Amino acid sequence: MPSIDLAAIVSDIVLEMRDAPDRGRPADYISALAKVDPGKFGIAIVMADGRVYAGGDADERFSLQSVSKVFALTLALGKAGDQLWNRVGREPSGSAFNSIVQLESEKGIPRNPFINAGAIVVADVNLARAQPREALAEFLAFVRYLSEDPTISIDEEVARSEAESGFRNVALANYMRAFGNLHHPPDDTLSVYFGQCAIAMSCRQLAMAGRYLMLAGKHPASGHRVVSAARARRINALMLTCGHYDASGDFAFRVGLPGKSGVGGGILTVVPGFASIAVWSPGLNANGNSQLGTLALERLVSQTGWSVFDSPQAR
Amino acid sequence: MPSIDLAAIVSDIVLEMRDAPDRGRPADYISALAKVDPGKFGIAIVMADGRVYAGGDADERFSLQSVSKVFALTLALGKAGDQLWNRVGREPSGSAFNSIVQLESEKGIPRNPFINAGAIVVADVNLARAQPREALAEFLAFVRYLSEDPTISIDEEVARSEAESGFRNVALANYMRAFGNLHHPPDDTLSVYFGQCAIAMSCRQLAMAGRYLMLAGKHPASGHRVVSAARARRINALMLTCGHYDASGDFAFRVGLPGKSGVGGGILTVVPGFASIAVWSPGLNANGNSQLGTLALERLVSQTGWSVFDSPQAR
Amino acid sequence: MPSIDLAAIVSDIVLEMRDAPDRGRPADYISALAKVDPGKFGIAIVMADGRVYAGGDADERFSLQSVSKVFALTLALGKAGDQLWNRVGREPSGSAFNSIVQLESEKGIPRNPFINAGAIVVADVNLARAQPREALAEFLAFVRYLSEDPTISIDEEVARSEAESGFRNVALANYMRAFGNLHHPPDDTLSVYFGQCAIAMSCRQLAMAGRYLMLAGKHPASGHRVVSAARARRINALMLTCGHYDASGDFAFRVGLPGKSGVGGGILTVVPGFASIAVWSPGLNANGNSQLGTLALERLVSQTGWSVFDSPQAR
Amino acid sequence: MPSIDLAAIVSDIVLEMRDAPDRGRPADYISALAKVDPGKFGIAIVMADGRVYAGGDADERFSLQSVSKVFALTLALGKAGDQLWNRVGREPSGSAFNSIVQLESEKGIPRNPFINAGAIVVADVNLARAQPREALAEFLAFVRYLSEDPTISIDEEVARSEAESGFRNVALANYMRAFGNLHHPPDDTLSVYFGQCAIAMSCRQLAMAGRYLMLAGKHPASGHRVVSAARARRINALMLTCGHYDASGDFAFRVGLPGKSGVGGGILTVVPGFASIAVWSPGLNANGNSQLGTLALERLVSQTGWSVFDSPQAR
Repeated sequence: MPSIDLAAIVSDIVLEMRDAPDRGRPADYISALAKVDPGKFGIAIVMADGRVYAGGDADERFSLQSVSKVFALTLALGKAGDQLWNRVGREPSGSAFNSIVQLESEKGIPRNPFINAGAIVVADVNLARAQPREALAEFLAFVRYLSEDPTISIDEEVARSEAESGFRNVALANYMRAFGNLHHPPDDTLSVYFGQCAIAMSCRQLAMAGRYLMLAGKHPASGHRVVSAARARRINALMLTCGHYDASGDFAFRVGLPGKSGVGGGILTVVPGFASIAVWSPGLNANGNSQLGTLALERLVSQTGWSVFDSPQAR
Repeated sequence: MPSIDLAAIVSDIVLEMRDAPDRGRPADYISALAKVDPGKFGIAIVMADGRVYAGGDADERFSLQSVSKVFALTLALGKAGDQLWNRVGREPSGSAFNSIVQLESEKGIPRNPFINAGAIVVADVNLARAQPREALAEFLAFVRYLSEDPTISIDEEVARSEAESGFRNVALANYMRAFGNLHHPPDDTLSVYFGQCAIAMSCRQLAMAGRYLMLAGKHPASGHRVVSAARARRINALMLTCGHYDASGDFAFRVGLPGKSGVGGGILTVVPGFASIAVWSPGLNANGNSQLGTLALERLVSQTGWSVFDSPQAR
Repeated sequence: MPSIDLAAIVSDIVLEMRDAPDRGRPADYISALAKVDPGKFGIAIVMADGRVYAGGDADERFSLQSVSKVFALTLALGKAGDQLWNRVGREPSGSAFNSIVQLESEKGIPRNPFINAGAIVVADVNLARAQPREALAEFLAFVRYLSEDPTISIDEEVARSEAESGFRNVALANYMRAFGNLHHPPDDTLSVYFGQCAIAMSCRQLAMAGRYLMLAGKHPASGHRVVSAARARRINALMLTCGHYDASGDFAFRVGLPGKSGVGGGILTVVPGFASIAVWSPGLNANGNSQLGTLALERLVSQTGWSVFDSPQAR
Repeated sequence: MPSIDLAAIVSDIVLEMRDAPDRGRPADYISALAKVDPGKFGIAIVMADGRVYAGGDADERFSLQSVSKVFALTLALGKAGDQLWNRVGREPSGSAFNSIVQLESEKGIPRNPFINAGAIVVADVNLARAQPREALAEFLAFVRYLSEDPTISIDEEVARSEAESGFRNVALANYMRAFGNLHHPPDDTLSVYFGQCAIAMSCRQLAMAGRYLMLAGKHPASGHRVVSAARARRINALMLTCGHYDASGDFAFRVGLPGKSGVGGGILTVVPGFASIAVWSPGLNANGNSQLGTLALERLVSQTGWSVFDSPQAR
């Protein structure tokens, strides 16, 4: 357990981020995202023992977008088990997050479950012959269970907005269908995908939802296993190698924690055994990851020694 | 500190690997590598407190090949500092280890220092206007210092053999020279590169040499810093995201430790704060990483809980 | 005018093709195409002076598929003029006919109007804010006018079959829409595209329809210009450089005439000033072009000297 | 035979080109090329009956560069016959002229003999176990024979300059060597390649040298065959589909003649049965082809009807 004063560290970070001049640019390809106030910044840390440190706009909900892919993957692994890896790879993509090139050379098998194509396959698994609405209800129930918060919901406006402008994702889905790597009608699978991305959560809710990943797969309230320890460890590994699009290497270099970002400006990170952390600020850097969110995590890790690449004894 | 019986675990692993039926295939593109006995397997673990556990062919020397890139990078960072990152990226490559495609689309800047192109740039930095022979002498002195073993040497036959058949590397070097990202004549830079790859070490020597990466950059004998704690952490991050060619994601998924493999069949891995580990077995899997070396590490981690993606408290 | 005995040449070709052992394989991705008898072979030559030489199954209708792209392009150039070239390139593609890779690197601008992506843009131009059904009626009227045959029609079963299995084309259309290079809803544009491809014609009808391309743009019956002489010449140029997918160079090398092939097994070729030629045999070679159709044209050209790369004086 | 007044047409073209404001930019990657006066323009037309029309700087020698690849290919086909096509393809490349990407995906087989990689294989064939100096002497003798001019020579300064800066070509050669598609030491093959490119000729000499391509392979002076009619036709086909790098489609579209350009600003084109034409102006367009040379040919063809895509009867 850290002897460091986390409350003070969080407070300092919030102050620094409030006045940070270079805040990046909010995503503008979905109108619902473009109108979010770029001045926002929130952070929430849930410790292994249940203590919570939060600051800034930690209770304001934002669109989870790709961060939701962590929960969708967890759910899909429960349904398909390791068979899932026949349909999705586990390697960093080495190119832009919506790239279709790699799909062509690798015959419709996406490189990993966190690029869009991979997450569409995951949504296809989660659809599982049900109706899209049912699959989304199940996903929502799962996230509410993880965060112990029944008020979490899907932002229908965002979901609709994505469905209307998501031509690249329609292309990806149909392309994989052509290779036989989609088992439902592309429109149905995409309904699930767009719905999952449109879930809205606050930093506090997100950090709560991520606890099973720091606790070797256990749900802290019930003590039940969400996933096995081995699976939790592997999801963490995937977050570290593939969680930040084509800047995953840079995030590992600067922050050194498993993490997943979304174009809504949120990032979920995990310190195995110690903490589940969520940060949010809508402005994105050139790689599509939250500019201040990444900076805040860099500050946090440098003061806590929480990087998985540092000695845990030094914490 | 682990209460586990490491000696017994190592002994079990050696037994399992001795009889493993599927041993992969040794690299055959260099004749000197192709004639190594595929029945070999060695492992050495150096703990933070200096204890050593070794088994199998832990004292037989093998060709380090790409594992040497870790030490070459460390040396180059000492010379060029973070300026190095203007000439080499820090992202997983997403394609075969000798791919030239990415170099074209990214204007001669290799994706990371562990793919061949990146390591050639690193060799170019280490050459630093000296003669290739001088640069190699400096590199050798550095590795001897890290491992506290003055008997380590470069296998001249292997170096010659690589120089004679390394047409792809000659292509890579000249290609980067065309983009201005090589500062010396390609032949000189390649002399350094081939020489670095041809260094021969045993598992025990290699695990000794890797200690600074588990000790936040410190040399255990002298207490001097080889690199700063931040730099050690970052080298570990790079090893995790980029250390196993296009199977880095898979290694993170299965083993969950920073590691660097070579086509000689060696792998160096680090458990920050706990252990520096070297394994060796010449047979390679489809991705060019040691088949039994990877399996041995998977066994070791599953019994010790040493993955950086598991709670360190559980160790 | 040739003094050669064309009737005899055609008759010899028909005999040779009837017994040819290596007939390629009919396309099987559309069920309607897969069930065509691979024993079929037809040829029709319409000379500049109106004489017709036909043989084999010259009057059996087959699915035009990509051969229709020549007429669709001609129609689109009439609507959009040279503005069309802002949305489609004029270069050979250098990769498989349904490749999506190039679209990504060239920002949604297809390389030429004869690859699928380019032909979808052409269909988008031909849709021109009308209903798909109206656009198809206009296209059909145009082809009937060119061939002076009001019985030509669209095979609705084939059109439906393509719409049901054409996931790659749906992907291409949505992908270009994401880049803004489609101006109608992808489903509407694809209706036109699939309908155009599903037009059914015999060799005789097809050779008649191609006459304007040998006659510097003139319709032989009316004497009216279908297109200007410059445009006819340019369409011929595009057929030669891009008309046979990634085997266009090979077709130029072996046959040496502007030509456009389709996966239905048809090929339309033009000898400027001399002849419009259609051949058909359902079996395809490895590049997706009619195996016997190509061979028949090779025979024809070697006996007539009609290659555009030979001296016309020698004909 | 044309009744048009070619002398007047040539004279008009020379006048227009003399004052053309947009002249492109001379290649600057070789210092010897960069210092050529961009105001230069020359044209020479040799008719089938031997008449010559020339204008502008038709007698000033320039560096042939890639135009030489036509003669090198002709020579190599004489040595290797159609076996050559096992080592080089015949398809347009669809990417920049020095692209290495395609080589990787196609295992070291260049797409065609006119891209650099393909021409290096051609040089490797022409080397044929001789010394580079002997191979170059043979090549020079061949070009002198074609043009009936013993004064043609290789510009040693240009050859040296290319050898010193040609890192990309060194990369290409070594890359193909790695795939086994080079049979001599890369340095030797490159000596031949750089020497061939460095040959210097005037428009008049070049148009003379190209006569065999308009005359179905015959040398007009001796009546001997340089190549068979079929081979001449095929070389013409390759020039049309692949002769202008990634603008071959555009050249076919605008000019409609088999042609080969070089970064020295020269273009050789052939009107089968009618004319062999050379133009030269050092400024290049964005695709690396002579800006005014291409424009001059466009003018010439529009006034003569010489495009192979037009009716020959109309000439």
